[in-house]
Order: sequence, then structure tokens, then C-alpha cells
Amino acid sequence: MTDALNCQYRLAARPVGLPKKSDWEYVTAPPRAPGEGEVLVGVEYLSLDPAMRGWMNEGKSYIAPVKLGDVMRALGVGKVLESKAAGFAAGDYVSGGFGIQSLATVPAKDCTKIDPRLAPLPVYLNVLGMTGMTAYFGLLEVGEPKPGETVVVSGAAGAVGATVGQIAKIKGCRVVGIAGGPEKCKFLIDELGFDAAIDYKAENVSKALRAACPAGIDVYFDNVGGDILDACLAQINLRARIVICGAISQYNNTTAVKGPANYLSLLVNRARMQGMVVFDYAAKYAKAAREMAGWMQAGKLQGREDIVEGIETFPETLLKLFSGENFGKLVLKV
Amino acid sequence: MTDALNCQYRLAARPVGLPKKSDWEYVTAPPRAPGEGEVLVGVEYLSLDPAMRGWMNEGKSYIAPVKLGDVMRALGVGKVLESKAAGFAAGDYVSGGFGIQSLATVPAKDCTKIDPRLAPLPVYLNVLGMTGMTAYFGLLEVGEPKPGETVVVSGAAGAVGATVGQIAKIKGCRVVGIAGGPEKCKFLIDELGFDAAIDYKAENVSKALRAACPAGIDVYFDNVGGDILDACLAQINLRARIVICGAISQYNNTTAVKGPANYLSLLVNRARMQGMVVFDYAAKYAKAAREMAGWMQAGKLQGREDIVEGIETFPETLLKLFSGENFGKLVLKV
Repeated sequence: MTDALNCQYRLAARPVGLPKKSDWEYVTAPPRAPGEGEVLVGVEYLSLDPAMRGWMNEGKSYIAPVKLGDVMRALGVGKVLESKAAGFAAGDYVSGGFGIQSLATVPAKDCTKIDPRLAPLPVYLNVLGMTGMTAYFGLLEVGEPKPGETVVVSGAAGAVGATVGQIAKIKGCRVVGIAGGPEKCKFLIDELGFDAAIDYKAENVSKALRAACPAGIDVYFDNVGGDILDACLAQINLRARIVICGAISQYNNTTAVKGPANYLSLLVNRARMQGMVVFDYAAKYAKAAREMAGWMQAGKLQGREDIVEGIETFPETLLKLFSGENFGKLVLKV
Repeated sequence: MTDALNCQYRLAARPVGLPKKSDWEYVTAPPRAPGEGEVLVGVEYLSLDPAMRGWMNEGKSYIAPVKLGDVMRALGVGKVLESKAAGFAAGDYVSGGFGIQSLATVPAKDCTKIDPRLAPLPVYLNVLGMTGMTAYFGLLEVGEPKPGETVVVSGAAGAVGATVGQIAKIKGCRVVGIAGGPEKCKFLIDELGFDAAIDYKAENVSKALRAACPAGIDVYFDNVGGDILDACLAQINLRARIVICGAISQYNNTTAVKGPANYLSLLVNRARMQGMVVFDYAAKYAKAAREMAGWMQAGKLQGREDIVEGIETFPETLLKLFSGENFGKLVLKV
């Protein structure tokens, strides 16, 4: 067993608006020795996701909130340091819900073995992880794009958005991404092959959508909510599908969420707006990951990770998600 | 041919907020003689519907707006007075889009023959007309209720809402209606067999919904929008379906429509919100009407008409729809 101390961030207070440093408690202590069926994992990379903001709030959601005093929930990848579980040995690489900590003692049944020779570890938090699964199932099972249709995705340079757009291209759609800043927009077109990109910080989104979607919008994959959701609602086609995956523009509101004023466009266009949570598709993850890995090998799908070093930077690194600053899948290197 | 004059209401101005008397022009003139393939109809009853408010606005919707100077669009039933069309004879009863006028000269192909011995004429504007079709297809094809599920409907004492609730009962659901005032609520339970009724004018709707829907809401059929839509969104179940049929609380807004602030409940609950327009189901009207007529004969489905006499009362009678004053299907007796 390791002599190292476990460094962890616990939720100290429920944030109001953006999470502050004082909402966290940083604790260092020896890790708990694994019991029967458990493994001790040396966590190497942690996934930082917009959904974490929701988990900090009290109240019923699709998953229980993180309790005050508990280690902050997070997905991670790492190496088994010690195993008391059949089928797992020291040296195995695994992914799982390790939380924001450097050493995690967890049930082996909650871990998935991963192969670092097939893809670098952070990829298992991005395209081959929950992020990729969210994009895959949200787009294909809820959005149901057909070849030749126009797919618009917001938060397009973010981890989910970038993958959604690339899968839509693979499926033969016209793809328009909405992102913040010229660098991200250039990346969407030059690197990911999007047909058009809209810089919401510099352009009038409604006007830019009209230019980029001359045949209207058939599928809108929404990661942001707010004004951009309204702008897209106003330009949907008959029988359009809007996938509600997130609403990052609204997560740190201290006032009420802004509802989509243009929702009656659903009536006019006999369209639907539907929410999705990736966990519902767990039974199909493995098959989807194999297909995604194939697309990666064929050069049709790429991931971009924004890796920040040092678990101690967690409180400020998390905020990059909400400022529009991060670019690609935000990963914390422990 | 008749010697009577045709009395008609034409749209004189696009209303701001509630339609005013000055938004209409009342014209009396001899009717146009029917040309080849046309019939002259003596209009007996006209259907007044919330959707009419939308048709008065400029701009793209699911149907072109009524042009300024044109006779106001409306469905009606009446008797053929003169026919220049094969298959139609003087004395036949027909329904069609006659407009707010007493004598309509229209293409026979746009008329449907009806049988006044099977049901009184106003029923063809209610349960056996577009109103009934809207309820039938909106509930069954978009709401997809299953036996034992809880169905909530707003505007429940209105023409569409009352029919939705009764069909949901026929399909084995628990049915909760939201309406304004004790008389309407009593009617829903005592006459139509709803399981519960909520008086939105007297009760806290959220609290009343919790009491009336102990197992949550599986289908919400929305005729009203606004705060009631938000209250229902907050109490939907996993994979709930929200049918957006109308938003009568918002039609006369002079400010922006109030979007549903609780729309992220769609995400949490993997639920969908979907719009519907009855015209899409035209190919199935006849089959649905036969099924509805069967339910009426079996005493499982009843309609209630709120009949106001005199075409000259049209401007003020229409307003009953928006004040919550009318009770049942609002019909103008010409």
C-alpha cells in the first residue's frame, strides 16, 4: 500500500451562483485501506463537467445531490494500487466515479478496466467516456438526425458539442456549431469539419443562424439554454427535434431560469423538445464505444482535451467551464 | 337564391392585446352567386376558437394569417341554399370553413356533408368537429397515455380540454382537470367523471397538483401555457409527455411570451414537450369521428356547447374565450 496521503476536495457549502473557494474543504489524510471487493486507485485524471454544478444543489434531480461534507463527485481514470477484488490486480488501469481526490478506495464492481495502449488515458474521460456517450446517444437516439438534415449544436467547442457535431457529419448532416470566440470557431471548421460556425460573442446569433441554416434547423442539440435556445427555436423546421442536454448559461443563476419564450414554435412546427440523461443508455455504452473507437481510428472523430495540472487547482479550474474559457474536454491531471 | 343580405365581419386591423371592436369591420351586402363547383350556404352556427387569435397576427405560423380586409376565418355548419356542384343539393347540411358571415359562397370540395339526425348541428363544431379531433389526436398520438397513468389537462372545461379528459378516462387513466371557478370544477367531476379538478382561480395550483397527482404527472395536455405549464413541469414523472396544444394565457400578451422556466425538468425526467396541429391528422378524421360518435352513443363522451345568439355579437362573444368566461365549446348561432 502507498504511503502517500489522499488529497481531496469536499463540498463544504451549497454554492449560490458560481462556486466560491469557500464552498470547498481541502482535506489530506491517509487513504482508507480497501476492504473485501474493493480496490485502491491512484487517480491520474479527473473529468470536470458542467453537470457537476447541478450536483452541488440541494433538491431532487436525475441523481442525488452531493451531501455536504462528502468528497465532490467526479469521474476519473487511474491505476489500481492495491486490490482486494477478484479480477483486478495492481497495475490495472480503470475508470470510475472516483471523486475529486488523488487516492480512491472504491468497490471494484463500480470500476471499468481500460486499456492505455488503445488510447491515452484522458480520452477515456472524453470521446470514449461519458462525454462521448452523452453526445452519441443524445444525438442519435433523441435527435434522430437524417442524412441531409441541418444539425445545430451549441457549446460546440466543448467536449459534448464537438463530438455531437462530428457524429452528425459522419451521419451525413449539415452541421453548424455555436461557440465563443474566433479561435474556437476556426477549430470547428478547420479541424472538425463543421460546415459553419457562429461566434455568439461577436455575432447576432439569429442573423448568423439564418445565413448558416438556409434550409432551417432540423435538430438542435442544446448545451446552453438561454437566448441561444430561443434563437434556435425561432428557426426550426416542421417536426424538428430539440435535444435538451444541458443549460450551462443558466446553472449559476441566482434568479429564476430563463424559460424559452419561443417555445410555441414547437406547436407551430409540430416539433419536440426532449431531455436526456446518459445513464439511461448504460446497457449500450460498450457497443457505442466500439463504434466511436472505430471512427477515431478512421480519422473521422477526434477529441480535444484541455488538461490542467494539479488537483489543488480544482476550485478555480472548475470555473473555466462557466466562463467559456475552456476549449475541449476539461480534465484535471492529478 | 336567397334575397337575404350576407352579414360578415372582416378583419380591419391587427389587434394589439385583446381584439377591440375597432379591429373589425361589419359589412352587409348581397351574397355572391355560386359559380361552377360552388355552393351557397346559409350558415347556422359558427365555431369560436382560441386559435383565431393567432390567425389575426401577422407573420408565419402553421397557417397563413387572415389578410386585412378579409372575412374572419372560422369553421361553421349550415344548409346548402343553392348548389352548382355535383353531389350537393339545396337542403343538404354541410360543415366547412365558412368564415364569420351568414351566407357563404364556397367551393363544394371544401365542404363536408353532415347528418343533423345523428347529432345536433353544434356537435359538428365540437366533439365531432375540429375540437374533438384536436383532443383525440393530441392526446392519443402525442400524449400517448397508458392505462393507469395520470393525465392532467388545463383549460379543462373548455371544448378541447373537456374532451381530452373524457378520452383519457375511456383509456383508463387517472384524470385531473384545471379550470377556473367552482362551477366548472364541479362539472368536470360530477358530469364528466374526472378524478379531480383544480380551481386555478382559488387554489395554489402546485399544491393542489401534489394532492391530486400523488403518483406524479405522466401526460400534461397544455391549452394555457404560463404559470400552469410551469407548475406541471415541476411535477412530471420520468418519460412524461407534454402536449403543447395552445397557450391561451399568452395569446393577448403585449409583452413577450412567458417561456416555461421549469423546462429543465424535461432533462431531469427525460421527458418530452411536443407541439401539435390538428390538420396533420386530416386523413384519419373520419375514423376518429366514428369512434367518438360511438363513445357518445355509449354515454362515455359528452359535449357541452356554450351557444351565443346573433352574429352581430361576434366581437364581444369572442372575448369570452380569453376572460375564462365561456364554459364548453363556444358557438355563435347565426
